[in-house]
Amino acid sequence: MMNIEEEFLKQQILERLNNLTKPIKSLGYLEDIVLKIGLIQGKIIPDLPKDKRVYIFAADHGVAANGVSAYPKQVTYQMVLNFLNGGAAINVFSRHVGAKVYVVDAGIDGDFDVKNDYFISAKIGYGTNDFTKGPAMSREQAEKCIEYGRKIAKEAIESGADLLVVGDMGIGNTTTASAIAVSFGFDIDEILDIGTFIDKDGLKRKRKAIQKAIEINNPDKNDPVDVLAKVGGFCFGQMAGFILKSAEEKIPVLIDGFPTTAGLLLAWNMDHNVLRYVFAGHRSMVKGHKVILDALNLRPILDLNMRLGEGTGAVLSIPIIEAAIKMIGEMSTFESAGVSKGVDQVK
Amino acid sequence: MMNIEEEFLKQQILERLNNLTKPIKSLGYLEDIVLKIGLIQGKIIPDLPKDKRVYIFAADHGVAANGVSAYPKQVTYQMVLNFLNGGAAINVFSRHVGAKVYVVDAGIDGDFDVKNDYFISAKIGYGTNDFTKGPAMSREQAEKCIEYGRKIAKEAIESGADLLVVGDMGIGNTTTASAIAVSFGFDIDEILDIGTFIDKDGLKRKRKAIQKAIEINNPDKNDPVDVLAKVGGFCFGQMAGFILKSAEEKIPVLIDGFPTTAGLLLAWNMDHNVLRYVFAGHRSMVKGHKVILDALNLRPILDLNMRLGEGTGAVLSIPIIEAAIKMIGEMSTFESAGVSKGVDQVK
Repeated sequence: MMNIEEEFLKQQILERLNNLTKPIKSLGYLEDIVLKIGLIQGKIIPDLPKDKRVYIFAADHGVAANGVSAYPKQVTYQMVLNFLNGGAAINVFSRHVGAKVYVVDAGIDGDFDVKNDYFISAKIGYGTNDFTKGPAMSREQAEKCIEYGRKIAKEAIESGADLLVVGDMGIGNTTTASAIAVSFGFDIDEILDIGTFIDKDGLKRKRKAIQKAIEINNPDKNDPVDVLAKVGGFCFGQMAGFILKSAEEKIPVLIDGFPTTAGLLLAWNMDHNVLRYVFAGHRSMVKGHKVILDALNLRPILDLNMRLGEGTGAVLSIPIIEAAIKMIGEMSTFESAGVSKGVDQVK
Repeated sequence: MMNIEEEFLKQQILERLNNLTKPIKSLGYLEDIVLKIGLIQGKIIPDLPKDKRVYIFAADHGVAANGVSAYPKQVTYQMVLNFLNGGAAINVFSRHVGAKVYVVDAGIDGDFDVKNDYFISAKIGYGTNDFTKGPAMSREQAEKCIEYGRKIAKEAIESGADLLVVGDMGIGNTTTASAIAVSFGFDIDEILDIGTFIDKDGLKRKRKAIQKAIEINNPDKNDPVDVLAKVGGFCFGQMAGFILKSAEEKIPVLIDGFPTTAGLLLAWNMDHNVLRYVFAGHRSMVKGHKVILDALNLRPILDLNMRLGEGTGAVLSIPIIEAAIKMIGEMSTFESAGVSKGVDQVK
């Protein structure tokens, strides 16, 4: 619900958009984006982000032991080193758009001996338990995940971050994300899909793992912490806390693919208000992603047939968001440019 | 058709893409983009564009007298001044992505008294004739349009341009674009849509104008110059020539919305080979755009519900193209990063 002040600001933003030298509504989704950013910042002409940051939450998932991914478990650890060395896709794209990449060890099965300003140790454990055999973690661990995620967002914002991107890395993460979604009532047939390119047998194993997780653990959909503890993962809880805190501090936060959206699902079940601050950067090829985005009424900015994660889809959408902000700030109006109005401007 | 050398290069590019630290094909459309650019440049790792330029072909259309647009005709002239003063959407977005904006007077009803390095006078006439009453222009004028368009591309490329964007401006341009498409055999019911926001009566007038143009002029779909002369416009012929020459010189050329795609349709009917060099930047909300893009098997990079023209959708796609090029050039491989391969890498 908007209050009167916000409703007034919204009218002012729309009036400005309609006075720019273009046919009414002809910049489509860019107009929606700048309206949302304007309402977040409380300004007709929003500021451009000055300190854009990606936080990749990396963790291992016990369910990976069930053969649900095309990759061996140690890739989670190896990819963290790749992120820190700047060689992954997210590094390339983040440099391209001027964003910094932070890597969070939310619970990887391995210790890191690195000195790097962009590495954040927030380890809850050495990977979750296999949730096909019992809860992924304890309730205390689940609560700690959310607390750590909040703390990471708080420090990011206090040190200047004004646009946040959530990324995820961890072998088995789409299986975990699916289990979270199914726990909240989504139909497994609408959600289940490959993450990496596994074969039909692999997909059957994935379905079985998700079904068994729900059956054995019986997560309570009205208690997001219970869902997280029973069929979640360390990174998912931290992403949820990170999104909750970003929204509380009124900082726009971009979600990426299917796992980060499961993180949002946890956050949304704790506080529906988060959606006012969340942007969906890219619609993943993982079919359950569209289902959840539609349910949350979030329209992704890009649709490039990607399915990588790490925050890559979200980061690629940043230039579009910046273009939307520059549009309302830099375009001339019909009056200032001496251009005749059309009948579409006459109410 | 690819020759053996190109087929070999294609295999090398795909091999490199599959060795980057990401699951096979997980960067989706970005992988297709960099493959296409690599084949154009003849390189596994293509060069980034260094001199990006937008050429907006502006002209008046006699058919505008039939009340087919929400805007009065003089807006074509006024918007050219807005482009030259840097206040239009295309100026804002081009500055954002580091591209220069050139404005071509292909045949506006008015003279310009401007000294501006970014203004190109290529006037064929003071607007076309109303094609609901006879041919839009003479065959000689149509040929001159294509020649001028080629010349503009030649000069652009000779002076260093290595990524070209085609934009269009002119009140009545979607009506003209529709008449061109219908002449080439597209069904008017699949093509007809509003450009700017006109009402139902306006849309009826638009349909009538297109039908009458075909009926009276009977354009020969096997003769693109005949189509251009009878139901086209000065900017459309120049865009076709511009695209043809860019392709001959192996310079990637981005099309924008519905009118520029009608320009491509003219060029494609002269030389099918142009498609190897053409990228579709954005799918317009104008419904006929998707129909033509699908027929040409061109997959747009962006889909942002825009319907502005000027080259805006195409320009916004440039950061995505650049990200694709940086991806293949900057990402580490499984070997270099010490990351384990997945079963998807094993053929």
